[in-house]
Amino acid sequence: MIHKNMDSARQGASCPSQQSAADQQRARIQDALSKIRHKIFVLSGKGGVGKSSISANLASALAKKGYRTGLMDVDVHGPSIAHMMGVTDLLDVSPDQQRLLPKQVNENLLVVSVQSLIPEKDQAIIWRGPAKTSMIQQFIGSVEWGDLDFLIIDAPPGTGDEPITIVQNISEALGIIVTTPQEVSLADVRKSISFCNTVKLKPLGIVENMAGFRCPHCNEPIELFASGGGQKTANAQGLDFLGSIPFDLNVVASGDAGTPLMLGDRQTDFTRAFSEIVDKILKQLK
Amino acid sequence: MIHKNMDSARQGASCPSQQSAADQQRARIQDALSKIRHKIFVLSGKGGVGKSSISANLASALAKKGYRTGLMDVDVHGPSIAHMMGVTDLLDVSPDQQRLLPKQVNENLLVVSVQSLIPEKDQAIIWRGPAKTSMIQQFIGSVEWGDLDFLIIDAPPGTGDEPITIVQNISEALGIIVTTPQEVSLADVRKSISFCNTVKLKPLGIVENMAGFRCPHCNEPIELFASGGGQKTANAQGLDFLGSIPFDLNVVASGDAGTPLMLGDRQTDFTRAFSEIVDKILKQLK
Repeated sequence: MIHKNMDSARQGASCPSQQSAADQQRARIQDALSKIRHKIFVLSGKGGVGKSSISANLASALAKKGYRTGLMDVDVHGPSIAHMMGVTDLLDVSPDQQRLLPKQVNENLLVVSVQSLIPEKDQAIIWRGPAKTSMIQQFIGSVEWGDLDFLIIDAPPGTGDEPITIVQNISEALGIIVTTPQEVSLADVRKSISFCNTVKLKPLGIVENMAGFRCPHCNEPIELFASGGGQKTANAQGLDFLGSIPFDLNVVASGDAGTPLMLGDRQTDFTRAFSEIVDKILKQLK
Repeated sequence: MIHKNMDSARQGASCPSQQSAADQQRARIQDALSKIRHKIFVLSGKGGVGKSSISANLASALAKKGYRTGLMDVDVHGPSIAHMMGVTDLLDVSPDQQRLLPKQVNENLLVVSVQSLIPEKDQAIIWRGPAKTSMIQQFIGSVEWGDLDFLIIDAPPGTGDEPITIVQNISEALGIIVTTPQEVSLADVRKSISFCNTVKLKPLGIVENMAGFRCPHCNEPIELFASGGGQKTANAQGLDFLGSIPFDLNVVASGDAGTPLMLGDRQTDFTRAFSEIVDKILKQLK
Protein backbone atom coordinates (compact mmCIF):
# COMPACT_ATOMS: atom_id res chain seq x y z
CA MET A 1 0.00 0.00 0.00
CA ILE A 2 1.21 3.46 -0.80
CA HIS A 3 0.45 5.88 1.98
CA LYS A 4 -1.40 8.97 0.84
CA ASN A 5 0.75 11.27 2.93
CA MET A 6 3.51 11.41 5.53
CA ASP A 7 1.14 11.28 8.51
CA SER A 8 -0.37 8.08 7.27
CA ALA A 9 3.10 6.56 6.75
CA ARG A 10 4.16 7.68 10.20
CA GLN A 11 1.17 6.07 11.80
CA GLY A 12 2.09 2.85 10.03
CA ALA A 13 5.19 2.46 12.23
CA SER A 14 5.76 -0.83 14.04
CA CYS A 15 3.02 -2.03 16.36
CA PRO A 16 2.67 -5.63 17.53
CA SER A 17 -1.03 -5.84 16.66
CA GLN A 18 -0.22 -5.24 12.98
CA GLN A 19 1.58 -8.58 12.61
CA SER A 20 -0.36 -9.74 9.57
CA ALA A 21 0.18 -6.38 7.87
CA ALA A 22 3.89 -6.92 8.54
CA ASP A 23 3.69 -10.37 6.91
CA GLN A 24 2.00 -8.84 3.88
CA GLN A 25 4.71 -6.18 3.76
CA ARG A 26 7.38 -8.88 3.78
CA ALA A 27 5.65 -10.83 1.01
CA ARG A 28 5.42 -7.67 -1.08
CA ILE A 29 9.11 -6.96 -0.56
CA GLN A 30 10.11 -10.53 -1.50
CA ASP A 31 7.95 -10.28 -4.62
CA ALA A 32 9.52 -6.96 -5.62
CA LEU A 33 13.05 -8.31 -5.05
CA SER A 34 12.55 -11.70 -6.71
CA LYS A 35 13.05 -10.27 -10.20
CA ILE A 36 16.37 -8.62 -9.31
CA ARG A 37 19.51 -10.70 -9.86
CA HIS A 38 22.11 -8.85 -7.79
CA LYS A 39 21.45 -6.41 -4.95
CA ILE A 40 24.43 -4.27 -3.98
CA PHE A 41 24.29 -2.22 -0.81
CA VAL A 42 26.76 0.69 -0.80
CA LEU A 43 27.61 1.56 2.78
CA SER A 44 30.05 3.66 4.76
CA GLY A 45 30.80 4.15 8.42
CA LYS A 46 31.02 7.91 8.01
CA GLY A 47 29.21 10.48 5.92
CA GLY A 48 30.82 12.63 3.26
CA VAL A 49 33.09 9.94 1.84
CA GLY A 50 31.25 10.12 -1.48
CA LYS A 51 29.00 7.11 -0.97
CA SER A 52 26.13 8.61 -2.99
CA SER A 53 28.52 9.64 -5.75
CA ILE A 54 29.95 6.08 -5.86
CA SER A 55 26.42 4.63 -5.94
CA ALA A 56 25.34 6.95 -8.76
CA ASN A 57 28.45 6.26 -10.81
CA LEU A 58 28.33 2.49 -10.17
CA ALA A 59 24.72 2.31 -11.36
CA SER A 60 25.57 4.48 -14.38
CA ALA A 61 28.58 2.32 -15.28
CA LEU A 62 26.62 -0.94 -15.05
CA ALA A 63 23.79 0.49 -17.16
CA LYS A 64 26.31 1.66 -19.75
CA LYS A 65 27.67 -1.91 -19.98
CA GLY A 66 24.17 -3.03 -20.91
CA TYR A 67 22.96 -4.33 -17.56
CA ARG A 68 19.44 -3.37 -16.58
CA THR A 69 20.10 -1.44 -13.39
CA GLY A 70 18.07 0.18 -10.65
CA LEU A 71 19.36 2.79 -8.21
CA MET A 72 17.50 3.27 -4.93
CA ASP A 73 18.17 6.06 -2.43
CA VAL A 74 16.82 5.36 1.05
CA ASP A 75 18.69 8.18 2.84
CA VAL A 76 15.62 9.64 4.51
CA HIS A 77 17.38 12.62 6.09
CA GLY A 78 19.75 13.61 3.30
CA PRO A 79 18.73 12.04 -0.01
CA SER A 80 21.08 13.29 -2.73
CA ILE A 81 20.70 10.69 -5.51
CA ALA A 82 17.74 12.46 -7.14
CA HIS A 83 19.78 15.65 -7.49
CA MET A 84 22.90 13.78 -8.66
CA MET A 85 20.92 11.92 -11.33
CA GLY A 86 19.01 14.99 -12.44
CA VAL A 87 15.66 13.54 -11.34
CA THR A 88 13.75 16.43 -9.88
CA ASP A 89 10.06 15.65 -10.17
CA LEU A 90 7.98 13.29 -8.07
CA LEU A 91 7.61 9.60 -8.85
CA ASP A 92 4.62 8.38 -10.78
CA VAL A 93 2.19 5.90 -9.32
CA SER A 94 0.85 2.86 -11.22
CA PRO A 95 -2.76 3.06 -12.51
CA ASP A 96 -3.97 0.75 -9.69
CA GLN A 97 -2.33 3.13 -7.14
CA GLN A 98 -0.41 0.19 -5.65
CA ARG A 99 3.08 0.68 -7.05
CA LEU A 100 5.70 3.43 -7.40
CA LEU A 101 7.14 3.76 -10.89
CA PRO A 102 10.87 4.57 -11.01
CA LYS A 103 12.19 7.38 -13.18
CA GLN A 104 13.95 6.24 -16.34
CA VAL A 105 17.35 7.93 -16.78
CA ASN A 106 18.21 5.98 -19.91
CA GLU A 107 17.31 2.70 -21.60
CA ASN A 108 18.94 0.60 -18.87
CA LEU A 109 18.88 2.85 -15.81
CA LEU A 110 16.00 3.39 -13.39
CA VAL A 111 16.10 5.58 -10.28
CA VAL A 112 13.95 5.98 -7.19
CA SER A 113 14.63 8.16 -4.18
CA VAL A 114 12.78 8.82 -0.96
CA GLN A 115 13.35 12.46 -1.99
CA SER A 116 10.68 11.94 -4.63
CA LEU A 117 8.13 11.23 -1.91
CA ILE A 118 8.76 14.58 -0.25
CA PRO A 119 6.80 17.34 -1.99
CA GLU A 120 8.79 20.23 -0.43
CA LYS A 121 12.43 19.41 -1.16
CA ASP A 122 13.98 21.55 1.58
CA GLN A 123 11.76 20.06 4.26
CA ALA A 124 13.60 17.99 6.88
CA ILE A 125 12.31 14.54 7.68
CA ILE A 126 12.36 14.77 11.46
CA TRP A 127 11.50 11.18 12.18
CA ARG A 128 12.60 8.77 14.82
CA GLY A 129 13.69 5.23 13.98
CA PRO A 130 10.40 3.27 13.86
CA ALA A 131 8.81 5.71 11.38
CA LYS A 132 11.89 5.51 9.16
CA THR A 133 11.91 1.72 9.28
CA SER A 134 8.28 1.64 8.23
CA MET A 135 8.84 4.10 5.40
CA ILE A 136 11.88 2.22 4.05
CA GLN A 137 10.08 -1.15 4.15
CA GLN A 138 7.12 0.33 2.36
CA PHE A 139 9.44 1.96 -0.15
CA ILE A 140 11.36 -1.26 -0.91
CA GLY A 141 8.12 -3.20 -1.35
CA SER A 142 6.32 -0.60 -3.46
CA VAL A 143 8.67 0.06 -6.38
CA GLU A 144 7.82 -1.57 -9.69
CA TRP A 145 11.31 -2.34 -11.03
CA GLY A 146 10.46 -5.15 -13.42
CA ASP A 147 13.40 -7.46 -14.22
CA LEU A 148 16.76 -6.06 -13.18
CA ASP A 149 20.34 -7.33 -13.37
CA PHE A 150 21.45 -4.98 -10.58
CA LEU A 151 19.89 -2.95 -7.84
CA ILE A 152 22.28 -0.45 -6.21
CA ILE A 153 21.10 0.70 -2.80
CA ASP A 154 22.38 3.95 -1.27
CA ALA A 155 21.64 4.19 2.46
CA PRO A 156 22.68 6.73 5.10
CA PRO A 157 26.09 6.24 6.72
CA GLY A 158 26.49 4.50 10.06
CA THR A 159 24.97 1.39 11.50
CA GLY A 160 21.54 2.57 12.66
CA ASP A 161 17.92 2.03 11.69
CA GLU A 162 18.22 2.53 7.93
CA PRO A 163 21.07 0.07 7.22
CA ILE A 164 19.58 -2.44 9.67
CA THR A 165 16.25 -2.22 7.87
CA ILE A 166 17.89 -2.73 4.47
CA VAL A 167 19.80 -5.81 5.60
CA GLN A 168 16.80 -7.34 7.36
CA ASN A 169 14.61 -6.90 4.31
CA ILE A 170 17.13 -7.59 1.53
CA SER A 171 19.00 -10.46 3.12
CA GLU A 172 20.76 -11.54 -0.08
CA ALA A 173 22.36 -8.11 -0.62
CA LEU A 174 26.14 -7.83 -1.02
CA GLY A 175 27.99 -4.90 0.55
CA ILE A 176 30.49 -2.42 -0.86
CA ILE A 177 32.18 -0.34 1.83
CA VAL A 178 33.28 3.17 0.83
CA THR A 179 35.89 5.14 2.75
CA THR A 180 38.33 8.01 2.41
CA PRO A 181 41.96 7.26 3.27
CA GLN A 182 42.50 9.11 6.55
CA GLU A 183 42.61 7.32 9.92
CA VAL A 184 39.53 9.04 11.37
CA SER A 185 37.49 7.60 8.47
CA LEU A 186 39.11 4.20 8.66
CA ALA A 187 38.04 3.83 12.28
CA ASP A 188 34.48 4.08 10.99
CA VAL A 189 35.18 1.54 8.23
CA ARG A 190 36.21 -1.01 10.82
CA LYS A 191 32.81 -0.37 12.39
CA SER A 192 31.14 -1.00 9.02
CA ILE A 193 32.99 -4.31 8.76
CA SER A 194 31.92 -5.20 12.30
CA PHE A 195 28.36 -4.33 11.21
CA CYS A 196 28.61 -6.63 8.15
CA ASN A 197 29.89 -9.49 10.31
CA THR A 198 27.17 -9.05 12.90
CA VAL A 199 24.23 -8.79 10.49
CA LYS A 200 25.74 -11.37 8.07
CA LEU A 201 26.03 -8.99 5.14
CA LYS A 202 28.67 -10.35 2.76
CA PRO A 203 31.04 -7.52 1.75
CA LEU A 204 32.38 -7.57 -1.82
CA GLY A 205 35.20 -5.30 -0.69
CA ILE A 206 36.41 -1.80 0.10
CA VAL A 207 36.52 1.20 -2.24
CA GLU A 208 38.80 4.09 -1.27
CA ASN A 209 37.46 7.42 -2.50
CA MET A 210 39.02 10.92 -2.79
CA ALA A 211 42.44 9.27 -2.62
CA GLY A 212 44.80 11.04 -4.98
CA PHE A 213 44.43 14.47 -6.52
CA ARG A 214 46.46 16.50 -8.97
CA CYS A 215 46.62 20.27 -8.86
CA PRO A 216 44.70 21.57 -11.89
CA HIS A 217 47.32 24.35 -12.20
CA CYS A 218 50.70 22.59 -11.79
CA ASN A 219 49.62 18.92 -12.03
CA GLU A 220 51.58 18.02 -8.89
CA PRO A 221 50.03 15.27 -6.71
CA ILE A 222 48.25 16.41 -3.51
CA GLU A 223 47.12 13.99 -0.84
CA LEU A 224 43.92 15.63 0.41
CA PHE A 225 42.96 12.95 2.89
CA ALA A 226 46.25 11.04 3.31
CA SER A 227 46.63 7.83 1.27
CA GLY A 228 46.83 4.05 1.29
CA GLY A 229 44.51 3.60 4.25
CA GLY A 230 41.85 1.69 2.29
CA GLN A 231 44.26 -0.99 1.05
CA LYS A 232 45.82 -1.32 4.51
CA THR A 233 42.44 -1.72 6.20
CA ALA A 234 41.28 -4.24 3.58
CA ASN A 235 44.41 -6.33 4.14
CA ALA A 236 44.14 -6.13 7.93
CA GLN A 237 40.49 -7.18 7.85
CA GLY A 238 40.86 -9.88 5.19
CA LEU A 239 38.66 -8.10 2.66
CA ASP A 240 39.13 -7.50 -1.07
CA PHE A 241 40.41 -4.04 -1.94
CA LEU A 242 38.33 -3.05 -4.96
CA GLY A 243 40.37 0.02 -5.80
CA SER A 244 41.24 3.63 -5.15
CA ILE A 245 39.42 6.51 -6.84
CA PRO A 246 41.13 9.89 -7.25
CA PHE A 247 39.48 13.10 -6.11
CA ASP A 248 38.22 14.86 -9.23
CA LEU A 249 36.79 18.39 -9.31
CA ASN A 250 34.51 17.21 -12.14
CA VAL A 251 32.81 14.74 -9.81
CA VAL A 252 31.60 17.60 -7.58
CA ALA A 253 30.48 19.57 -10.64
CA SER A 254 28.79 16.58 -12.27
CA GLY A 255 27.00 15.75 -9.01
CA ASP A 256 25.72 19.31 -8.80
CA ALA A 257 24.74 19.20 -12.48
CA GLY A 258 22.86 15.90 -12.26
CA THR A 259 24.97 13.86 -14.70
CA PRO A 260 27.40 11.31 -13.17
CA LEU A 261 30.73 11.06 -15.00
CA MET A 262 30.25 7.34 -15.67
CA LEU A 263 27.17 8.12 -17.77
CA GLY A 264 29.29 10.04 -20.26
CA ASP A 265 32.10 9.06 -22.61
CA ARG A 266 34.91 11.25 -21.28
CA GLN A 267 38.01 9.35 -20.15
CA THR A 268 39.69 10.71 -17.02
CA ASP A 269 41.76 9.28 -14.15
CA PHE A 270 38.46 9.04 -12.28
CA THR A 271 36.58 7.08 -14.95
CA ARG A 272 39.55 4.77 -15.58
CA ALA A 273 39.88 3.94 -11.87
CA PHE A 274 36.14 3.53 -11.57
CA SER A 275 35.93 1.18 -14.59
CA GLU A 276 38.57 -1.09 -13.03
CA ILE A 277 36.50 -1.32 -9.86
CA VAL A 278 33.37 -2.18 -11.83
CA ASP A 279 35.27 -4.93 -13.67
CA LYS A 280 36.48 -6.36 -10.34
CA ILE A 281 32.94 -6.40 -8.97
CA LEU A 282 31.59 -8.13 -12.11
CA LYS A 283 34.39 -10.73 -11.93
CA GLN A 284 33.49 -11.50 -8.31
CA LEU A 285 29.85 -12.00 -9.21
CA LYS A 286 30.54 -14.44 -12.08
CA MET B 1 22.22 5.70 36.99
CA ILE B 2 25.10 4.43 34.95
CA HIS B 3 24.28 1.17 33.23
CA LYS B 4 26.81 -1.58 33.92
CA ASN B 5 26.86 -2.68 30.29
CA MET B 6 25.31 -2.18 26.86
CA ASP B 7 22.57 -4.77 27.36
CA SER B 8 21.39 -3.02 30.46
CA ALA B 9 21.37 0.34 28.65
CA ARG B 10 19.49 -1.20 25.75
CA GLN B 11 16.83 -2.61 28.04
CA GLY B 12 16.40 0.86 29.47
CA ALA B 13 14.88 2.08 26.19
CA SER B 14 11.52 3.86 26.34
CA CYS B 15 8.63 1.98 27.94
CA PRO B 16 5.49 3.66 29.29
CA SER B 17 5.64 1.87 32.66
CA GLN B 18 8.97 3.55 33.38
CA GLN B 19 7.45 7.03 33.54
CA SER B 20 8.87 7.93 36.93
CA ALA B 21 12.30 6.72 35.88
CA ALA B 22 11.95 9.05 32.89
CA ASP B 23 11.10 11.94 35.24
CA GLN B 24 14.17 11.16 37.32
CA GLN B 25 16.24 11.08 34.13
CA ARG B 26 14.93 14.52 33.14
CA ALA B 27 15.69 15.94 36.59
CA ARG B 28 19.21 14.55 36.42
CA ILE B 29 19.72 16.11 32.98
CA GLN B 30 18.42 19.51 34.13
CA ASP B 31 20.72 19.34 37.15
CA ALA B 32 23.74 18.49 34.99
CA LEU B 33 22.95 21.29 32.54
CA SER B 34 22.13 23.99 35.09
CA LYS B 35 25.79 24.76 35.71
CA ILE B 36 26.54 25.32 32.03
CA ARG B 37 26.13 28.84 30.68
CA HIS B 38 26.01 28.31 26.92
CA LYS B 39 25.18 25.08 25.11
CA ILE B 40 26.13 25.04 21.46
CA PHE B 41 24.89 22.25 19.24
CA VAL B 42 26.98 21.78 16.08
CA LEU B 43 24.84 20.22 13.39
CA SER B 44 24.91 19.44 9.69
CA GLY B 45 22.48 18.03 7.19
CA LYS B 46 25.11 15.82 5.63
CA GLY B 47 28.06 13.85 6.95
CA GLY B 48 31.68 14.51 6.04
CA VAL B 49 31.45 18.30 6.03
CA GLY B 50 33.90 18.43 8.93
CA LYS B 51 31.34 18.88 11.71
CA SER B 52 33.45 16.98 14.27
CA SER B 53 36.54 18.90 13.25
CA ILE B 54 34.66 22.21 13.66
CA SER B 55 33.36 21.07 17.07
CA ALA B 56 36.83 20.04 18.26
CA ASN B 57 38.44 23.25 17.06
CA LEU B 58 35.64 25.45 18.43
CA ALA B 59 35.95 23.88 21.87
CA SER B 60 39.74 24.20 21.70
CA ALA B 61 39.55 27.87 20.67
CA LEU B 62 37.11 28.77 23.45
CA ALA B 63 39.25 26.97 26.05
CA LYS B 64 42.30 28.80 24.77
CA LYS B 65 40.51 32.12 25.29
CA GLY B 66 40.08 31.15 28.95
CA TYR B 67 36.51 29.87 28.87
CA ARG B 68 35.84 26.68 30.77
CA THR B 69 34.64 24.45 27.98
CA GLY B 70 33.20 20.97 27.64
CA LEU B 71 33.05 18.97 24.41
CA MET B 72 30.53 16.15 24.17
CA ASP B 73 30.37 13.62 21.32
CA VAL B 74 27.05 11.81 21.04
CA ASP B 75 27.61 10.30 17.59
CA VAL B 76 26.78 6.75 18.60
CA HIS B 77 27.62 5.14 15.23
CA GLY B 78 30.73 7.09 14.28
CA PRO B 79 32.21 8.92 17.27
CA SER B 80 35.42 10.64 16.14
CA ILE B 81 35.94 13.33 18.80
CA ALA B 82 37.88 11.02 21.15
CA HIS B 83 40.37 10.25 18.38
CA MET B 84 40.58 13.90 17.26
CA MET B 85 41.25 15.07 20.83
CA GLY B 86 43.73 12.29 21.56
CA VAL B 87 41.53 10.78 24.27
CA THR B 88 41.89 7.04 23.91
CA ASP B 89 41.13 5.46 27.25
CA LEU B 90 37.77 4.92 28.90
CA LEU B 91 36.10 7.51 31.08
CA ASP B 92 36.44 7.31 34.82
CA VAL B 93 33.45 6.91 37.08
CA SER B 94 32.91 8.94 40.27
CA PRO B 95 33.54 7.14 43.62
CA ASP B 96 29.77 6.79 44.22
CA GLN B 97 29.45 5.12 40.76
CA GLN B 98 26.74 7.65 39.82
CA ARG B 99 28.62 10.02 37.51
CA LEU B 100 30.91 9.90 34.48
CA LEU B 101 34.06 12.01 34.81
CA PRO B 102 35.15 13.78 31.61
CA LYS B 103 38.73 13.60 30.40
CA GLN B 104 40.76 16.75 30.96
CA VAL B 105 42.59 17.86 27.81
CA ASN B 106 43.98 21.01 29.39
CA GLU B 107 43.16 23.39 32.25
CA ASN B 108 39.98 24.66 30.56
CA LEU B 109 38.96 21.82 28.27
CA LEU B 110 37.00 18.70 29.18
CA VAL B 111 35.92 15.98 26.75
CA VAL B 112 33.46 13.12 26.85
CA SER B 113 32.53 10.80 24.01
CA VAL B 114 30.17 7.86 23.69
CA GLN B 115 33.26 6.20 22.20
CA SER B 116 34.66 6.04 25.73
CA LEU B 117 31.75 3.82 26.76
CA ILE B 118 32.57 1.25 24.08
CA PRO B 119 35.36 -1.07 25.24
CA GLU B 120 36.18 -2.45 21.76
CA LYS B 121 36.76 0.60 19.60
CA ASP B 122 36.14 -1.06 16.21
CA GLN B 123 32.83 -2.52 17.33
CA ALA B 124 29.78 -1.11 15.54
CA ILE B 125 26.88 0.11 17.65
CA ILE B 126 24.08 -1.59 15.75
CA TRP B 127 21.21 0.00 17.60
CA ARG B 128 17.83 1.18 16.55
CA GLY B 129 16.44 4.57 17.57
CA PRO B 130 14.91 3.95 21.02
CA ALA B 131 18.10 2.38 22.39
CA LYS B 132 20.14 5.33 21.10
CA THR B 133 17.73 7.84 22.62
CA SER B 134 18.01 6.12 25.97
CA MET B 135 21.79 6.00 25.81
CA ILE B 136 22.11 9.67 24.85
CA GLN B 137 19.74 10.82 27.63
CA GLN B 138 21.64 8.75 30.14
CA PHE B 139 24.90 10.12 28.83
CA ILE B 140 23.79 13.79 29.01
CA GLY B 141 22.53 13.33 32.55
CA SER B 142 25.50 11.36 33.85
CA VAL B 143 28.50 13.55 33.08
CA GLU B 144 29.97 15.52 35.95
CA TRP B 145 31.01 18.72 34.17
CA GLY B 146 31.05 21.10 37.10
CA ASP B 147 30.67 24.78 36.13
CA LEU B 148 31.18 25.44 32.44
CA ASP B 149 31.05 28.56 30.26
CA PHE B 150 30.45 26.48 27.12
CA LEU B 151 29.33 23.01 26.22
CA ILE B 152 29.90 22.10 22.56
CA ILE B 153 27.78 19.16 21.42
CA ASP B 154 28.74 17.12 18.38
CA ALA B 155 25.89 14.94 17.11
CA PRO B 156 25.53 12.76 14.02
CA PRO B 157 24.43 14.48 10.81
CA GLY B 158 20.83 14.50 9.67
CA THR B 159 17.58 15.05 11.49
CA GLY B 160 16.92 11.70 13.15
CA ASP B 161 16.86 10.26 16.66
CA GLU B 162 20.14 11.69 17.95
CA PRO B 163 19.57 15.39 17.08
CA ILE B 164 15.93 15.14 18.16
CA THR B 165 17.02 13.71 21.52
CA ILE B 166 19.58 16.49 22.02
CA VAL B 167 17.07 19.25 21.29
CA GLN B 168 14.37 17.71 23.45
CA ASN B 169 16.73 17.37 26.41
CA ILE B 170 18.82 20.54 25.99
CA SER B 171 16.08 22.95 25.00
CA GLU B 172 18.19 26.09 25.54
CA ALA B 173 20.89 24.96 23.09
CA LEU B 174 21.89 27.24 20.20
CA GLY B 175 22.70 25.73 16.83
CA ILE B 176 25.64 26.17 14.48
CA ILE B 177 25.05 24.67 11.04
CA VAL B 178 28.11 23.39 9.18
CA THR B 179 28.20 22.83 5.42
CA THR B 180 30.54 22.53 2.48
CA PRO B 181 29.93 24.90 -0.45
CA GLN B 182 28.57 22.60 -3.18
CA GLU B 183 24.88 22.47 -4.07
CA VAL B 184 24.38 18.82 -3.07
CA SER B 185 25.47 19.76 0.48
CA LEU B 186 23.46 22.97 0.56
CA ALA B 187 20.27 21.05 -0.13
CA ASP B 188 20.95 19.27 3.16
CA VAL B 189 21.64 22.56 4.95
CA ARG B 190 18.21 23.80 4.02
CA LYS B 191 16.91 20.64 5.67
CA SER B 192 18.92 21.48 8.82
CA ILE B 193 17.34 24.93 8.87
CA SER B 194 13.89 23.40 8.43
CA PHE B 195 14.79 21.10 11.36
CA CYS B 196 15.80 24.10 13.55
CA ASN B 197 12.54 25.88 12.73
CA THR B 198 10.42 22.84 13.47
CA VAL B 199 12.06 21.89 16.79
CA LYS B 200 12.57 25.57 17.82
CA LEU B 201 16.36 25.39 17.94
CA LYS B 202 17.73 28.90 17.51
CA PRO B 203 20.58 28.86 14.97
CA LEU B 204 23.53 31.19 15.58
CA GLY B 205 24.40 30.90 11.90
CA ILE B 206 26.09 28.93 9.14
CA VAL B 207 29.77 27.97 8.88
CA GLU B 208 31.09 27.01 5.45
CA ASN B 209 33.90 24.47 5.68
CA MET B 210 36.46 23.19 3.13
CA ALA B 211 35.81 26.30 1.07
CA GLY B 212 39.06 27.53 -0.40
CA PHE B 213 42.31 25.64 -0.84
CA ARG B 214 45.74 26.53 -2.14
CA CYS B 215 47.98 24.03 -3.89
CA PRO B 216 50.88 23.28 -1.53
CA HIS B 217 53.19 23.13 -4.58
CA CYS B 218 52.27 26.20 -6.68
CA ASN B 219 50.06 28.11 -4.19
CA GLU B 220 47.33 28.61 -6.79
CA PRO B 221 43.73 28.59 -5.47
CA ILE B 222 41.69 25.41 -6.04
CA GLU B 223 37.96 25.22 -5.39
CA LEU B 224 37.54 21.66 -4.16
CA PHE B 225 33.84 21.83 -3.45
CA ALA B 226 32.78 24.93 -5.42
CA SER B 227 32.47 28.18 -3.42
CA GLY B 228 30.18 30.84 -2.02
CA GLY B 229 27.26 28.48 -1.37
CA GLY B 230 27.27 28.98 2.41
CA GLN B 231 26.92 32.77 2.20
CA LYS B 232 24.24 32.48 -0.48
CA THR B 233 22.22 29.99 1.56
CA ALA B 234 22.56 32.09 4.73
CA ASN B 235 21.27 35.15 2.87
CA ALA B 236 18.41 33.26 1.28
CA GLN B 237 17.32 31.79 4.60
CA GLY B 238 17.81 34.95 6.66
CA LEU B 239 20.57 33.47 8.82
CA ASP B 240 23.90 34.92 9.92
CA PHE B 241 26.87 33.75 7.89
CA LEU B 242 29.56 33.09 10.49
CA GLY B 243 32.37 32.61 8.00
CA SER B 244 34.16 30.43 5.53
CA ILE B 245 37.00 28.10 6.53
CA PRO B 246 39.60 27.03 3.97
CA PHE B 247 40.47 23.39 3.41
CA ASP B 248 43.80 22.73 5.10
CA LEU B 249 45.81 19.54 4.79
CA ASN B 250 46.98 20.12 8.38
CA VAL B 251 43.41 19.76 9.65
CA VAL B 252 43.26 16.18 8.37
CA ALA B 253 46.68 15.44 9.83
CA SER B 254 45.90 17.12 13.16
CA GLY B 255 42.61 15.22 13.39
CA ASP B 256 44.44 11.96 12.80
CA ALA B 257 47.11 12.98 15.34
CA GLY B 258 44.67 13.96 18.08
CA THR B 259 45.61 17.65 18.41
CA PRO B 260 43.21 20.19 16.85
CA LEU B 261 44.95 23.15 15.20
CA MET B 262 43.12 25.65 17.43
CA LEU B 263 44.82 24.14 20.50
CA GLY B 264 48.24 25.17 19.20
CA ASP B 265 49.86 28.51 18.48
CA ARG B 266 50.53 28.17 14.76
CA GLN B 267 48.91 30.88 12.63
CA THR B 268 47.54 29.69 9.28
CA ASP B 269 44.71 30.69 6.93
CA PHE B 270 42.64 28.07 8.75
CA THR B 271 43.29 29.38 12.27
CA ARG B 272 42.77 33.01 11.20
CA ALA B 273 39.40 32.22 9.57
CA PHE B 274 38.42 30.10 12.53
CA SER B 275 39.30 32.81 15.07
CA GLU B 276 37.08 35.29 13.24
CA ILE B 277 34.17 32.85 13.48
CA VAL B 278 34.76 32.35 17.21
CA ASP B 279 34.77 36.13 17.70
CA LYS B 280 31.48 36.44 15.82
CA ILE B 281 29.90 33.74 17.98
CA LEU B 282 31.11 35.41 21.20
CA LYS B 283 29.76 38.77 20.01
CA GLN B 284 26.33 37.23 19.36
CA LEU B 285 26.25 35.74 22.86
CA LYS B 286 27.09 38.99 24.65
